[in-house]
Amino acid sequence: MLRILLEPGSKMPLYEQIYQHIKVEIKNGTLPTNTKLPSTRTLSNNLAVSRNTVDLAYSQLLSEGYITSKPKSGYYVCLVADLPNITLKSTPMKNIEPKEKTNYLYDFSPFTIDINNFPFHTWKRLSKEAMSVTNHELFLLGCSQGDENLRVAIAEYLRSFRSVNCNTDQIIIGAGSDYLLQLLCQLLTRATNDNSDVIAMENPTYMRAYHIFKGFSYQVEPIALDKYGIHIESLTKSKANIVYVTPSHQYPLGIIMPITRRLELLNWASEAPSRYIIEDDHDSEFRYKGKPIPSLQGIDSDGTVIYLGTFSRALTPALRIAYMVLPDKLFRIYKEHFSYYSSTVSRVDQHILAEFIMGGYFERHLNKMRTIYKSKHDLLIQLLKIFGDKIEIEGENAGLHLVLRFHTKLSEEEIIKIASEHQIKLYSLSKHYIASSHPSSLLDEYSHPTFLLGYANISEEVLRNGIRCLYEVLKDIL
Amino acid sequence: MLRILLEPGSKMPLYEQIYQHIKVEIKNGTLPTNTKLPSTRTLSNNLAVSRNTVDLAYSQLLSEGYITSKPKSGYYVCLVADLPNITLKSTPMKNIEPKEKTNYLYDFSPFTIDINNFPFHTWKRLSKEAMSVTNHELFLLGCSQGDENLRVAIAEYLRSFRSVNCNTDQIIIGAGSDYLLQLLCQLLTRATNDNSDVIAMENPTYMRAYHIFKGFSYQVEPIALDKYGIHIESLTKSKANIVYVTPSHQYPLGIIMPITRRLELLNWASEAPSRYIIEDDHDSEFRYKGKPIPSLQGIDSDGTVIYLGTFSRALTPALRIAYMVLPDKLFRIYKEHFSYYSSTVSRVDQHILAEFIMGGYFERHLNKMRTIYKSKHDLLIQLLKIFGDKIEIEGENAGLHLVLRFHTKLSEEEIIKIASEHQIKLYSLSKHYIASSHPSSLLDEYSHPTFLLGYANISEEVLRNGIRCLYEVLKDIL
Repeated sequence: MLRILLEPGSKMPLYEQIYQHIKVEIKNGTLPTNTKLPSTRTLSNNLAVSRNTVDLAYSQLLSEGYITSKPKSGYYVCLVADLPNITLKSTPMKNIEPKEKTNYLYDFSPFTIDINNFPFHTWKRLSKEAMSVTNHELFLLGCSQGDENLRVAIAEYLRSFRSVNCNTDQIIIGAGSDYLLQLLCQLLTRATNDNSDVIAMENPTYMRAYHIFKGFSYQVEPIALDKYGIHIESLTKSKANIVYVTPSHQYPLGIIMPITRRLELLNWASEAPSRYIIEDDHDSEFRYKGKPIPSLQGIDSDGTVIYLGTFSRALTPALRIAYMVLPDKLFRIYKEHFSYYSSTVSRVDQHILAEFIMGGYFERHLNKMRTIYKSKHDLLIQLLKIFGDKIEIEGENAGLHLVLRFHTKLSEEEIIKIASEHQIKLYSLSKHYIASSHPSSLLDEYSHPTFLLGYANISEEVLRNGIRCLYEVLKDIL
Repeated sequence: MLRILLEPGSKMPLYEQIYQHIKVEIKNGTLPTNTKLPSTRTLSNNLAVSRNTVDLAYSQLLSEGYITSKPKSGYYVCLVADLPNITLKSTPMKNIEPKEKTNYLYDFSPFTIDINNFPFHTWKRLSKEAMSVTNHELFLLGCSQGDENLRVAIAEYLRSFRSVNCNTDQIIIGAGSDYLLQLLCQLLTRATNDNSDVIAMENPTYMRAYHIFKGFSYQVEPIALDKYGIHIESLTKSKANIVYVTPSHQYPLGIIMPITRRLELLNWASEAPSRYIIEDDHDSEFRYKGKPIPSLQGIDSDGTVIYLGTFSRALTPALRIAYMVLPDKLFRIYKEHFSYYSSTVSRVDQHILAEFIMGGYFERHLNKMRTIYKSKHDLLIQLLKIFGDKIEIEGENAGLHLVLRFHTKLSEEEIIKIASEHQIKLYSLSKHYIASSHPSSLLDEYSHPTFLLGYANISEEVLRNGIRCLYEVLKDIL
């Protein structure tokens, strides 16, 4: 007979106490397979609880399959006890990777932005407005390629400021460039019927994109750069039908691809069917001399360029919003095969961002940040003069970092180590090379130790002290 | 000689007018290759503008590669004119897919939720607090697997309410289940060294997951269901080493997999190395009788179950936040090879959601919604009694839809057409079958016309009128 000790004062409901008790007895074999359980009437009488309570406990056991019900006969224990594995264990996992705890006094990271000048006030207001009672539909699932309002805003921005030739329909909004590159890999695999499994990349390049391509089983052919960017002859010799480039401001070297090279690149793409150029326009908003370099996409008339942009540098990386402009042929493939993927961006965020762009705040923010970054950029170049002819600077006048090359016999590792001992964190260029081919650069000078010197998130005072400190540490050994 | 007509009153800056003018003349050949441009001093005198203005125009042309500078000689036009393609066209794209405009009076969609009871007020307040000045770090890039706060909150929720055996480190937060399934495909490809390219799925199933697997070149083996869920013998006979299941509430049939079948499934997974079970726990929060069915993951002691959950049904699909709990082995692969992918969820949203769970609002919201949905669920079952023995109902007591089967000679298409003519939208079950194999179900009855009847976003009054209307339309022809 079932002996169940109920605790009426317990937080656990009575039906659950009954359910748990019977479940445990079945699991440990106290109630063997095929045992007949008391009827709900009998058990409720025995336990002095309502019949509903017992009904509920039995129906839970039925749902989970611990007991079965035979018509006009009653409830029987199922065959479960002789199977292994029923344990709710709680083994804490080992901490796999201890976080780097070192705090540097001077961190020249090229990956950050100046967050202190983010337009918190405006964003907060727009966010509040988005949450107003009239916007309930913002809490339902939206269009898979992104909300139309935001796509309209982005298309207008791209046409006006980046000379991108696009309309609202071609734009896919996604949760960051990394996500869009993953989606693009899937699109390209289908567009090229798996025949184009080689992607060419500038070398050095944006290694995150490299890893994504490799993750999708693409073979990556690193292509050396000359002073105009990707070397077309090497590209033509490669087996690649897809190339990933950063023509407005090569990442990480800062080379601006001149119009002639751009046209050669477009010609390469038009020489065979199913060739595509991925134009990653990662930081073109920030140019400190003249106007932004017009996009490669805007001069493509064959529909070979896929344009990728992001709000991570222009606004904030925490927002996770990026976009791509697909040529007609790829867009049709997206529409047919991939539009079942749900959008990856919160609708409220899309709404706020659309209002932010349409209200003119984005343009104002860009102008403000351009001034702030230019001032830091100019100061940094000024400060670096202290090194005289021991260094060379490249990639200036745009983006959020400079390329700093030392004329010295010291290695990158040695300089990083010495700097680090004085709480200065430097970021070496060599990490941006696709491994096997470094140093295959056509630019000899990159055999010298070279660093990316980010300045976006450093105050002018810290910049001054940091460069002075770096100079003091290195001056006698360079 | 260069003749440039400047418009001092124009919105376009003077330097840009000069730049545009020269660029056009280079492009159309008026300024042929190797033409020497006037010095900046000469041109500034001729145009009566400052020398800085001309400097800026020339440096833009230099940057973009239209002209080149020869030391101690001057500026020369580059060879660009004879290359094709320089046109900024604006061809509007054809509208590829006209949107379905029909508005139904009664739409029994199984894909929506009741948004009117979303806790707007609380969400708005938490959102406002998240934007407070002390939270500036929320605008910098966060942890790639999701913010720790949110992972702590989710782990606690999963342990308490879903009997999931997990800790904070194993959780990956992503922008929706679709995204996480894409990430998982990449993880599994690496974990199994490409040897496991067959995934078994319940049939019928969640077709979005099917499309994602196919998109990643997986071969999908549909496995028929019996009344306990996926048929283990068929699974064992298949070539699959990975299986995608919905054990707590089979989608779309609503079958609860009993404990015996669960243990058989776990045994299958442990019979060969690199076997994995994907447990998609898509709507287990909503169970209207007894307590939620404990997860399959919680009784797995071999690290073979990948647990997938989402806030899309429990809270709102517009938020785009889902999570997966990886077994140790897969987590190590994630950490080593995929943690360079940036997070796909906005940090502000992660922060708000963490506060929402930790503050107890999520639990309260679930309890409230469970009551609301149960009431609609009960009413719908009550209303359907009007059909008498012409119908059968399955998958009740959980989720946000019922499975409604008609005993009739009419086909699904015929019933959908008739209903549609009376502004009733029905969703047929057959769309959830993996094409080739339907009707291979072990459950004979699914050859009858069967529909998924969603009720989440329909008011009780509309439910009453809708079912009454459906009955009137069908009663004489069933």
